[in-house]
Amino acid sequence: MESLKENLKEIVGKENVIVNRVDLLCYSNEMSPFKYEPDLLVFAKTTQEVSRILQYANKRKIPVTTRGAGTSVVGAVLPRKRGIILDLTKMDKIKTIKTEDFYAIVEPGVVLDKINKNLAKHGLFFPPDPGSSVACTIGGMAATNASGVRAVKYGTTKDWILALEIVLVDGTIFKAGHPVPKSSSGHSLVQLFVGSQGTLGIITELTLKVAPLPRYRATISVFFDTLENAGRSVTDILIAGVNPAAMELMDKNCQIVVNKVFNLNLLETEGFLIIELDGNEKAVKEDIKVVEEKCMKRNGKNFAWTDDPKKAETLWEARKVLVPSIAKMRAGYVMMVLAEDPGIPISELGDAIREIQGISRKHGITIATFGHAGDGNIHPTMIVDPSSSEDWKKVKLVEKELMTLVLKRGGSISAEHGIGLSKIPFAKAGLGVSLDVMKRIKKTLDPNNILNPGKLGLDTGEREEPGNLFYEGLAHVGEEFELKRYKNEIIKCFRCGICRAVCPTFDYTKLETTNARGRVLLAYFFLTKEIKPSEKLLEAFNKCTLCMHCTMACPPGIVVSEIVETARRDMAKMGFTDPVHKAIAENVMKHNNPFGLDAAQRLELAKTLEVL
Amino acid sequence: MESLKENLKEIVGKENVIVNRVDLLCYSNEMSPFKYEPDLLVFAKTTQEVSRILQYANKRKIPVTTRGAGTSVVGAVLPRKRGIILDLTKMDKIKTIKTEDFYAIVEPGVVLDKINKNLAKHGLFFPPDPGSSVACTIGGMAATNASGVRAVKYGTTKDWILALEIVLVDGTIFKAGHPVPKSSSGHSLVQLFVGSQGTLGIITELTLKVAPLPRYRATISVFFDTLENAGRSVTDILIAGVNPAAMELMDKNCQIVVNKVFNLNLLETEGFLIIELDGNEKAVKEDIKVVEEKCMKRNGKNFAWTDDPKKAETLWEARKVLVPSIAKMRAGYVMMVLAEDPGIPISELGDAIREIQGISRKHGITIATFGHAGDGNIHPTMIVDPSSSEDWKKVKLVEKELMTLVLKRGGSISAEHGIGLSKIPFAKAGLGVSLDVMKRIKKTLDPNNILNPGKLGLDTGEREEPGNLFYEGLAHVGEEFELKRYKNEIIKCFRCGICRAVCPTFDYTKLETTNARGRVLLAYFFLTKEIKPSEKLLEAFNKCTLCMHCTMACPPGIVVSEIVETARRDMAKMGFTDPVHKAIAENVMKHNNPFGLDAAQRLELAKTLEVL
Repeated sequence: MESLKENLKEIVGKENVIVNRVDLLCYSNEMSPFKYEPDLLVFAKTTQEVSRILQYANKRKIPVTTRGAGTSVVGAVLPRKRGIILDLTKMDKIKTIKTEDFYAIVEPGVVLDKINKNLAKHGLFFPPDPGSSVACTIGGMAATNASGVRAVKYGTTKDWILALEIVLVDGTIFKAGHPVPKSSSGHSLVQLFVGSQGTLGIITELTLKVAPLPRYRATISVFFDTLENAGRSVTDILIAGVNPAAMELMDKNCQIVVNKVFNLNLLETEGFLIIELDGNEKAVKEDIKVVEEKCMKRNGKNFAWTDDPKKAETLWEARKVLVPSIAKMRAGYVMMVLAEDPGIPISELGDAIREIQGISRKHGITIATFGHAGDGNIHPTMIVDPSSSEDWKKVKLVEKELMTLVLKRGGSISAEHGIGLSKIPFAKAGLGVSLDVMKRIKKTLDPNNILNPGKLGLDTGEREEPGNLFYEGLAHVGEEFELKRYKNEIIKCFRCGICRAVCPTFDYTKLETTNARGRVLLAYFFLTKEIKPSEKLLEAFNKCTLCMHCTMACPPGIVVSEIVETARRDMAKMGFTDPVHKAIAENVMKHNNPFGLDAAQRLELAKTLEVL
Repeated sequence: MESLKENLKEIVGKENVIVNRVDLLCYSNEMSPFKYEPDLLVFAKTTQEVSRILQYANKRKIPVTTRGAGTSVVGAVLPRKRGIILDLTKMDKIKTIKTEDFYAIVEPGVVLDKINKNLAKHGLFFPPDPGSSVACTIGGMAATNASGVRAVKYGTTKDWILALEIVLVDGTIFKAGHPVPKSSSGHSLVQLFVGSQGTLGIITELTLKVAPLPRYRATISVFFDTLENAGRSVTDILIAGVNPAAMELMDKNCQIVVNKVFNLNLLETEGFLIIELDGNEKAVKEDIKVVEEKCMKRNGKNFAWTDDPKKAETLWEARKVLVPSIAKMRAGYVMMVLAEDPGIPISELGDAIREIQGISRKHGITIATFGHAGDGNIHPTMIVDPSSSEDWKKVKLVEKELMTLVLKRGGSISAEHGIGLSKIPFAKAGLGVSLDVMKRIKKTLDPNNILNPGKLGLDTGEREEPGNLFYEGLAHVGEEFELKRYKNEIIKCFRCGICRAVCPTFDYTKLETTNARGRVLLAYFFLTKEIKPSEKLLEAFNKCTLCMHCTMACPPGIVVSEIVETARRDMAKMGFTDPVHKAIAENVMKHNNPFGLDAAQRLELAKTLEVL
């Protein structure tokens, strides 16, 4: 372990090898309800470094799990077999934007929104648009084959990557694909690596296909009394030749959630559709008429549309705030992100959601269902008490029934988030012999199984081991902590990582430990006694500037500063005070001066510190 | 060999195992300038049969090369290591069209036009559209990742396949993908198998994604004085946000060819663009204005557009007849289909074509260049005398320079036809380490290398062996044959296979031997003495009904009936007459009655024949 650390430091520099458990705990989870701690966290800054790390790790059979922003929802970036977390967020350069050839070359750690901001200057955009665009990295999107609300028109990440630079497990660096719009030269390796969640090789550069920005947009909203009518309208609209840029469906539970939490005024019918049309203004306006006609035929209610970006924003807000709203719905309850993104045939949307509502009633577990109706991708979302073992049992039953429903309809167990860790128990049933073929490809490209082991069902059909459930700690919450008051606020954090976009200390360090999400996580592990108080832990809380940028950006609006201040107090009571703070306090008490030295002495000291 | 034949007959029935060399020669080539004879031709009718054939062949390490309509242009379907040609054209059922879910399930042997005719009844279409749509099979399209003029808007075959049933080399049958619009469940096996040209497994069923038919179409034509201006207009139009359904470029040579052969009245400028727009009528009409403005800025000439399908047809005719026109250009000359479909960055189109013209001048080989400008896919087409060893030497030099030009520009050595056999010498340079990764995947999925061996550069970097050049036989044309008069007509056949769509005897047998292309091929091999006269050969010529359907459909308009009649005469001179014909002739001479029997006798005979 010591030599491992030293050897890695030789490759990436000592500031890029992190071994303290306080730091590592911040990399032990994401949105999934699982938890796995790594042995080390390593930042690579170049393809060469990635290559050397893999060569080194492969020889010693040390697991390597690649991570971008950690916005995965299926445990894809959790180090299941410990080993190295390889963080690529410091590889964040936009290398080329070639407007006239419609491609951009970027490093894997670039955040999607940064790419699109830069492309917009050229009148271009990269269409796949996961909800986490403000934080997620393009490398993570490629690893997941991510998409979002626009997939119905624009497809998924795998449709928008022309070429990749990949490092194989033995350190070989190669390029798959070409920076041209079309290619049929050999096996489609680009598509094989996209969506492979770091199990086959590591993506160190991406050539993205980009498109001109649409010239006009309009957003439609319409309500339906039955899910069948909402679902059938989706099909009718598509068959009529309308090609919407987005087509989102929310069930009644979702509308209730949004109304309650955001004081919106949705009708609370069985089905609510938001449809975005983009392109030529005249064509969009004609299509709006077609959409209206189709919806009216299915008894659509309160049909409305707007091309005012501000009004559209309000409509999309209802959709965007949905996930965080669910998290805010009931104090002490959390979203249980499992079986959360199946793909089903479009024509079965209404039926499937009604069946899901039946499952919800049967088990007494609230499920809010929304989704990308235009591509049959739904998000049934369970809301449960994570400290209730009863609820956890029900979650397992509901999960199984949701997956059975999907398989029965010939669907895909994951339409956009990937199998990762969460869906492993259903990989065999969902993939059949395909899983064996995947295993053979995995074996030939990663014979020692060091690349993100324990994922996709490639080496095990199990996902749960003792101690790997994130919420297990709730059974051991310290009664003695003042922080206990904030337990529900802490578990409201569903670890989406959006705060990475705004936290000033994270922006400087690129380390989760000094990010809002990391601090809330540490508060959770402190409260559940999974981590002991230490100078290092105190440092993590103390580095927070209490600026509250995170609270502004946080989907469920968590007041991280209060959590941090309370944790600091609890730590002080336990005898942990920052030596600098302590010295200042003592000086003030003793000298009425925070420095404890007079001006002349301070000047001398400053000179020795090379400040002046 | 005898037991092989018997065992295969047990699997597929005796009528589906073909071993006669006359038949097999008809499967020894396609549009590429190469020739390889198989040991057997086998038709499979079910997935189970394919599975049993592979199990059998894999155990005995017998090569299996899968074939659809044989419209490949790169030697992809040639049995390089002999063995079995597995013909899937009898698996030609459209199993399901699911309008409301936008998919269709089809067998691999269905011809593309048949699929689209059936889809059109539901207002749907399958967008990828190779020029061979009248004959090519969907399985072949998937194996090649075929595209066509519409790829600029609609993408290629790999973008339109949701799921595949695949038979692995050990006979395992499995499904990759799901019949839903979006999936991120595990590695993208669908895309891995699409474009793999039968090297990884055999596709026995396809779930196609389909789209609503566009509601309106318009076609634009415009000429440019320089290739740079034509090329830049392409980029300008795309950057302006116009999303054309097709965007075709022809150089001056192409315009001359079309004008000369079809009496069209094209301007004969350096560059000619045909652009198709589809979708909403108002949007298309606005886009036409944008296109006009962009072209005028680049000194476009004779800008014209039409939404009259008949007029548009005339414009597209110029594009469609181009390939056959090239074949008709000069008696005794042929298109040399090599280095024929590179992909290059769109912005370098003009430069690249000018460079190609330089290569043409340097070597004194006519090259006509056209292509799908919107996706940087160009088709430089050499026109050469195939019996000139001088020309053949030049062809090799030109091919190498064309490929060097592509590699220099970071392009793809094949944008739509695949590497197959033809591009093997450039696979290493074009793919680099990717080729090694492909080899590893190949090795794990086909350890005995029986699936289409000798292709894609997976097992050899060479493509030429003694005796495998199609036109070699021209050195041995029999002076004694009357057929010699038709030599130029025979080599005008570039073996595109379009006649499969119309030949009545082929329609009945599904065997190339009784198709126009097969008969012309046999005439060629007879003339070049690569096949000896035999009863079987005579039968192939005699089964032609001389209906001339093929001539009507044949792109270069070859009068197959004259070739066949002349071959029959040559064979008669050599003592080969059909025994039935001979008997009829003798009876007429002797009895003045073709039957040689009186009515009562014929009635008795008919009874024994169970005709009555």
